[in-house]
Amino acid sequence: MRRLAADRAKRLIRSFLAAQSSLSVSSPSSFLSSPASAAMSTSSTPTVSLASINPKVLKCEYAVRGEIVTHAQRLQEDLKAKPGSHPFDEILYCNIGNPQSLGQQPITFFREVLALCEHPSILDRDETHGLFSADAIARAWEILDVIPGRATGAYSHSQGIKGLREAIAAAGIASRDGYPCNSDDIFLTDGASPAVHMMMQLLIRSEKDGILCPIPQYPLYSASIALHGGSLVPYYLDEETGWGLEISDLKKQLEDARSKGITVRALVVINPGNPTGQVLAEENQRQIIEFCKEESLVLLADEVYQENIYAGGKEFNSHKKIARSMGYGDKDISIVSFQSVSKGYYGECGKRGGYMEVTGFSADVREQIYKVASVNLCSNISGQILASLVMNPPKPGDESYDSFTAERDGILSSLARRAKALEDAFNSLEGVTCNKAEGAMYLFPRIRLPTKAIEAAKAVNSVPDAFYVRRLLETTGIVIVPGSGFGQVPGTWHIRCTILPQEDKMPAIVSRFKAFHESFMEEFRD
Amino acid sequence: MRRLAADRAKRLIRSFLAAQSSLSVSSPSSFLSSPASAAMSTSSTPTVSLASINPKVLKCEYAVRGEIVTHAQRLQEDLKAKPGSHPFDEILYCNIGNPQSLGQQPITFFREVLALCEHPSILDRDETHGLFSADAIARAWEILDVIPGRATGAYSHSQGIKGLREAIAAAGIASRDGYPCNSDDIFLTDGASPAVHMMMQLLIRSEKDGILCPIPQYPLYSASIALHGGSLVPYYLDEETGWGLEISDLKKQLEDARSKGITVRALVVINPGNPTGQVLAEENQRQIIEFCKEESLVLLADEVYQENIYAGGKEFNSHKKIARSMGYGDKDISIVSFQSVSKGYYGECGKRGGYMEVTGFSADVREQIYKVASVNLCSNISGQILASLVMNPPKPGDESYDSFTAERDGILSSLARRAKALEDAFNSLEGVTCNKAEGAMYLFPRIRLPTKAIEAAKAVNSVPDAFYVRRLLETTGIVIVPGSGFGQVPGTWHIRCTILPQEDKMPAIVSRFKAFHESFMEEFRD
Repeated sequence: MRRLAADRAKRLIRSFLAAQSSLSVSSPSSFLSSPASAAMSTSSTPTVSLASINPKVLKCEYAVRGEIVTHAQRLQEDLKAKPGSHPFDEILYCNIGNPQSLGQQPITFFREVLALCEHPSILDRDETHGLFSADAIARAWEILDVIPGRATGAYSHSQGIKGLREAIAAAGIASRDGYPCNSDDIFLTDGASPAVHMMMQLLIRSEKDGILCPIPQYPLYSASIALHGGSLVPYYLDEETGWGLEISDLKKQLEDARSKGITVRALVVINPGNPTGQVLAEENQRQIIEFCKEESLVLLADEVYQENIYAGGKEFNSHKKIARSMGYGDKDISIVSFQSVSKGYYGECGKRGGYMEVTGFSADVREQIYKVASVNLCSNISGQILASLVMNPPKPGDESYDSFTAERDGILSSLARRAKALEDAFNSLEGVTCNKAEGAMYLFPRIRLPTKAIEAAKAVNSVPDAFYVRRLLETTGIVIVPGSGFGQVPGTWHIRCTILPQEDKMPAIVSRFKAFHESFMEEFRD
Repeated sequence: MRRLAADRAKRLIRSFLAAQSSLSVSSPSSFLSSPASAAMSTSSTPTVSLASINPKVLKCEYAVRGEIVTHAQRLQEDLKAKPGSHPFDEILYCNIGNPQSLGQQPITFFREVLALCEHPSILDRDETHGLFSADAIARAWEILDVIPGRATGAYSHSQGIKGLREAIAAAGIASRDGYPCNSDDIFLTDGASPAVHMMMQLLIRSEKDGILCPIPQYPLYSASIALHGGSLVPYYLDEETGWGLEISDLKKQLEDARSKGITVRALVVINPGNPTGQVLAEENQRQIIEFCKEESLVLLADEVYQENIYAGGKEFNSHKKIARSMGYGDKDISIVSFQSVSKGYYGECGKRGGYMEVTGFSADVREQIYKVASVNLCSNISGQILASLVMNPPKPGDESYDSFTAERDGILSSLARRAKALEDAFNSLEGVTCNKAEGAMYLFPRIRLPTKAIEAAKAVNSVPDAFYVRRLLETTGIVIVPGSGFGQVPGTWHIRCTILPQEDKMPAIVSRFKAFHESFMEEFRD
């Protein structure tokens, strides 16, 4: 076992650069052009060409909305124009954590409050009491009262409305962690993605600046690092130990990067994991914090799945909470925690709400973060309001409390059942092994592809897992993402599949997937 | 006159680099630290310092939310904590085009539709018909019907919901311009700012890439160019001819930049102008298009004030319309038009809605723009819906049409009156001259400051116009932005003031401003 780990480490170090390029899905030539390009005339202007655009843009890849999705959209248009033109009736998007697109219903209380804040002039009308719960009306008033001039259509403070940040800090973060939170540390953002970009923009000066990222990782990180011209320094999660994070490996990767002249600025941790679904143990988090402190790294903690825990005995602990429990304060470690309204049981992706909690930065650096936030003026106010709601939902005694908890628990328990059903299904397939989804919204099974399939992929200039994923799409209408979009140990192949299809659809999906896989393995049997 | 122009041109060329540095408001040392920093403990971590962050972030300045605003926020907190602690009762934010923060009411129809889309389950309820207009209910249904699965909480297509883009393209842009618009050319964005960043990110490879920008300019452009590491190539609007744009000056600046080894990629035009308020004449727009075509420049057309026209005989023409009227199509010129829900008569800044219409780019470059849009998944859905509403408002015959037009015209005619009142007020001040605000939301008067005031500013390490603006704030509570935040002909000093305070407040503002100015001029009389 130790020998295996050492071999693996050597392989990984050698594959430092290879890993970065393998983050792309496959060569563009293996896919048709996008709908946008198909819809365009055959125009060509000399003003801007691929050769003259920012090469960082060219380098950036974002697999979860990559070519496979573009291809799926094309098939969907085919189906609309010519029903029956493909061996399936609908496209099933399991490529992205987008619960409401697959039928998850929004939480009623949240939407009531949002609707009332959109059109406050109905708050005083009698009919409103027939349509909205009393605590939603009360909450809308509370929110309006913390918005200067009750102007929900005004730009807010660049960090977001102060009163909403105060609610997030006190009722949300401090009560979750048991440690104080300062509302001045909160930056409300249009989802977590712009927050991640903001930090990358702050930290990356050139390709000599590196960011330690888990592999596999959520490709927002590789994309953002590429767009900002930095270097992704990979550390590998260990599939055999349930995607565990080994500090010794982290140290090794750091030293290796340093020996190549890279200044490592930050460490990204995604907990619960995306695409891997593991929930870090407290002891592991303590090691990570110790490591960041010792090595003077900013800890970028992606905590957007904090409400998505399915495994018994597992619980979410924020990295800031763990740091504080170790006695480390603002002076000891720089931590940025990202949260989003898109995930959790709420799944409000379209609202683009979220925040980052920025701790342990000097006042002058924080002013720079504030300045960058100011250039975009503020995040959208509905998203700001929703961020305050998910961090401060109805409490016992509120009129909506029972219906709220029923909706929340219904979604979370269904997600847990779906995770288990898909995990079992994957593990029943020939050559497929799948770790448990302890949390988050995905499974990331490993697929041992037959040599003939790998050769067939090469013959059409495709990465093997992308080849598999494309065949799956064309056979079943199911859209998933090839593991190469997230990074994986070279020579291994994976897929990422969300656990989000509604339960009544699950049996059909599982049987379509199984039938496809069997026939694929049969076709390429060595 | 010609001699003067030639002298000016020489001065301007020499000041190429100086202009870029003069875009900053003043040296930080002239202001106290920000509230965020004041709230922080005296922590210091070695992890990140000003010396180790991305220098592009350090270089970026954004005056309309700069130090003067931070100072104003501090005074506001003073007033709250200790009423009477300053010689004014309230802070009046005239620094930013944020109409609803100053009491402008949202358009009822828009907010009705947004509220219904937030909480569609009330659409079928009887009480709803008592609370909402029939056409708002009908429109909400129409919108829900173009959203896949009616899921307003789902991520949309990376460019935005197709059905909303179709409405913007057909009912909005094509009907406005009289030329076709393809919905595939529309990218819905969280306000115009992210769209501008996206284009800068695409076009700028290094400091050797230049973007021609008007001076004075809206500092989003200088900030975005700085953040993306490019060079701002200034062209000067001529204050004496009502902020006219001379093509000969444009050519001169282009050649000058090229002689310095700068590859100029694009030309920014802001029409109606910000901060200058001029509305370009058609003939001038034709010259600009011809220039961009000849010089292979992308035309970045900031058209967010397209509904804000106050001067009789002036009208808005999109640059794409003018290009098409000249017979130039997609193959001839690359034009990006930016629009936002934050401006116009709607002024919905907090909603963060907007779009860019991208025409004349090759299919492969457009795929790159799509990819960058995908990394942030999508813009917020409420903002997307609102963008479709402002581009496709109620029509004659709709139940809301009369009340909608009354609200719209009330706001626009009031803005016109306010613009005139402030213009007259500025022109009545000693040493101040102010061009007419033909459009947009600002006046940009020139102030001839006494030498003693300039010396007093230098003595406290401040730029003279920032010194004036700070004194104004501390004396009256009125927040405006120094001209140096927008750029100005070296040696001249300006201020930008929005026309947005409500009419009932205008007389008091004007008299406070006048009293301040008189006493300032008296104090520093040479």
